[in-house]
Amino acid sequence: MTAEIINIGDELLIGQVVNTNASWMGAELNKAGIQVKQITSIADDASDIRKALDQAKERVDIILISGGLGPTKDDITKKTLAEYFDSTMVFHEPSLENVKRIFSGLNFEVTEVNRQQAMVPEKCTPLVNRTGTAPGMWFEQEGKVIVSMPGVPLEMKTLTSEEVIPRLQKHFHLDAIVHKTVMTTGMGESFLAEKIKEWEDNLPAHVKLAYLPQPGIVRLRLSAKGTDKKALETELDQLLRGLEQYIPKAIFGYCDCALEEVVGKLLKENGKTVATAESCTGGYISHLITSIAGSSAYFKGGIVSYANEVKMDQLGVLPETLEEHGAVSREVVEQMAAHVRERLQTDFGIAVSGIAGPDGGTEEKPVGTTWIAVACEGEVKAKKFHFGPQRDRNIRRAALAALNLLRLELV
Amino acid sequence: MTAEIINIGDELLIGQVVNTNASWMGAELNKAGIQVKQITSIADDASDIRKALDQAKERVDIILISGGLGPTKDDITKKTLAEYFDSTMVFHEPSLENVKRIFSGLNFEVTEVNRQQAMVPEKCTPLVNRTGTAPGMWFEQEGKVIVSMPGVPLEMKTLTSEEVIPRLQKHFHLDAIVHKTVMTTGMGESFLAEKIKEWEDNLPAHVKLAYLPQPGIVRLRLSAKGTDKKALETELDQLLRGLEQYIPKAIFGYCDCALEEVVGKLLKENGKTVATAESCTGGYISHLITSIAGSSAYFKGGIVSYANEVKMDQLGVLPETLEEHGAVSREVVEQMAAHVRERLQTDFGIAVSGIAGPDGGTEEKPVGTTWIAVACEGEVKAKKFHFGPQRDRNIRRAALAALNLLRLELV
Repeated sequence: MTAEIINIGDELLIGQVVNTNASWMGAELNKAGIQVKQITSIADDASDIRKALDQAKERVDIILISGGLGPTKDDITKKTLAEYFDSTMVFHEPSLENVKRIFSGLNFEVTEVNRQQAMVPEKCTPLVNRTGTAPGMWFEQEGKVIVSMPGVPLEMKTLTSEEVIPRLQKHFHLDAIVHKTVMTTGMGESFLAEKIKEWEDNLPAHVKLAYLPQPGIVRLRLSAKGTDKKALETELDQLLRGLEQYIPKAIFGYCDCALEEVVGKLLKENGKTVATAESCTGGYISHLITSIAGSSAYFKGGIVSYANEVKMDQLGVLPETLEEHGAVSREVVEQMAAHVRERLQTDFGIAVSGIAGPDGGTEEKPVGTTWIAVACEGEVKAKKFHFGPQRDRNIRRAALAALNLLRLELV
Repeated sequence: MTAEIINIGDELLIGQVVNTNASWMGAELNKAGIQVKQITSIADDASDIRKALDQAKERVDIILISGGLGPTKDDITKKTLAEYFDSTMVFHEPSLENVKRIFSGLNFEVTEVNRQQAMVPEKCTPLVNRTGTAPGMWFEQEGKVIVSMPGVPLEMKTLTSEEVIPRLQKHFHLDAIVHKTVMTTGMGESFLAEKIKEWEDNLPAHVKLAYLPQPGIVRLRLSAKGTDKKALETELDQLLRGLEQYIPKAIFGYCDCALEEVVGKLLKENGKTVATAESCTGGYISHLITSIAGSSAYFKGGIVSYANEVKMDQLGVLPETLEEHGAVSREVVEQMAAHVRERLQTDFGIAVSGIAGPDGGTEEKPVGTTWIAVACEGEVKAKKFHFGPQRDRNIRRAALAALNLLRLELV
């Protein structure tokens, strides 16, 4: 069973709005075992809508349309669909009742424009939209199902979950598609590919592997399709268990999750607290940690020591250490990590000092050179990294590397 | 001149990745005066890629493809394009040099997989990708231009801005389009629209105004199209000068620039330094400040005081103040700002304490309540804000509001 998502709206084409509807709809269809073949964004234009429908019908069994159903002038989808399905417009009493219900809640009067929203093409099954005024419309033609929904995210989501997916499951016999994601950090895509080559080469033919890289992180996703969802899930889980031996330190989660979330959960489960001492990352590590709701349970605070005097005055780094080894050195990050842990009275202290760039590099310590330390009771570990020439990536990668070092202390 | 954007990647169809590439590319093409007719997302599948190209060529003059050019197995775009354009693969020396340059900076060895990235279809003009290893490819066929780029956002963006758009302008002799951007902060879109209504109503007919909102910031963009670029620029500059009287505190730049960049420049020009004391923003302000290269000239460091004990121990907040007024109060942020300024010996201290959410709100201080203070020699100013219910937006908006308060002290 295949589907296409068509999102209608000029704002999508000029880049004023990021198409989050498409990714949400794609994920929902996928979860229901429906393979999305294409996502198409087009303008509020009758001719473009007709052409997109013609082409989509050639490709897929199911077409989900969002956008262009509001009460204002630029929304021409409904009129175009009525013409496309050679259908007169009829009045749909439950949809008018719905408009009245919503407007009475808002203390608004129902205008003629709103009343028009309860008009639907005769040949569709109207789907009452309990979170908005424009009904969804379900059409069937030549064995295909075409559903049109408003573009307002909440309305589209409610209609999809409560009406469209259950009706599709009933209407068609659906195969299961199973995906499993593994999060890795600290290895680039090609380096990772070489490390896991043997494992990848031994994957069964019906299992697909995808590399999904972002700075500092590569997500690996296994996918398989079949009738027995449970068996596929077990199979993918088993395959993934075989991966760990190839990259034991790089995997931080068997989920589609952030490293800061995983580290936060581990700290919470272990009843541990952490404090940060940041130079080149400039507060980005503490920002990542505190982006997670509830982080006050394990994060007490941190010191951003951008200037050397702050490293000395607030983090107890000895002037002679700075003099002898420089700010980007094992000795300095060890002192930073140990001191911030003591000063803020936490179980762990993490510290980073590096050359984020673009300036400040030397032959011995080029831009990207970064020292990271993790301190706990009676012990400080430090490690040197070489990231790249780009400032924003260096900051991101250094922060992820620091969080991963902390994670390895917690597992 | 019309264009279609084709984004290749299974991850887009199953909704694992939101297609931010498409909106960015749409905005850039739009700015260059090229009308985007359709955005198409398809799978890493040779047959789907071929069909999408066939159909796009019927619709538009320019096709920009992103995705599917990495070094790993799931990337089949390059091979498919070579076949599509009936082209053998040839070795492109500058692209191999580029791979080597990038890998030597990273201290990585160039593997055979990476070496393969320098192979390109003979019939394309390769575009060297200075931020990544996979080259872009420019094809011409039957008067159409088809360009393929990697899907990694930074690489796609750099190639689009530096290579693709300038080449398209030259190739198609495009009309000049002039855009001028004004950055505003602290006002929502509709509030801003009311404030500047008179100015907007008086804009000449050939000048278009666009509101481009993001959390905490609204960009206003004026656009005009014509043959005399210089005259258009002068006209737009004059129109923009008339805007300031309506929103004197909200405008922070006449450029497409970040607030942290503007504040950094002002600090540098004035020879002033700053330190931060952050509670709910958790290091995000210092992260923003230090995301700017050269920020060590004016940023000494900061203290993230997530726990109340850190506010007391490291920022001299009096226990009785916390007791009497609570952590989210004028008195606490005033003490934080004044103390961090003294402690880190800077000209300015900025402090934030608020309820980021989702928990921690009360009837008196709901989620989103935030106090911000700016301290300088002999003076501390504090202001209360009400942001919204969403944690990530609250952090972002609080940080921007703090930077804007500092900016107003510097102009």
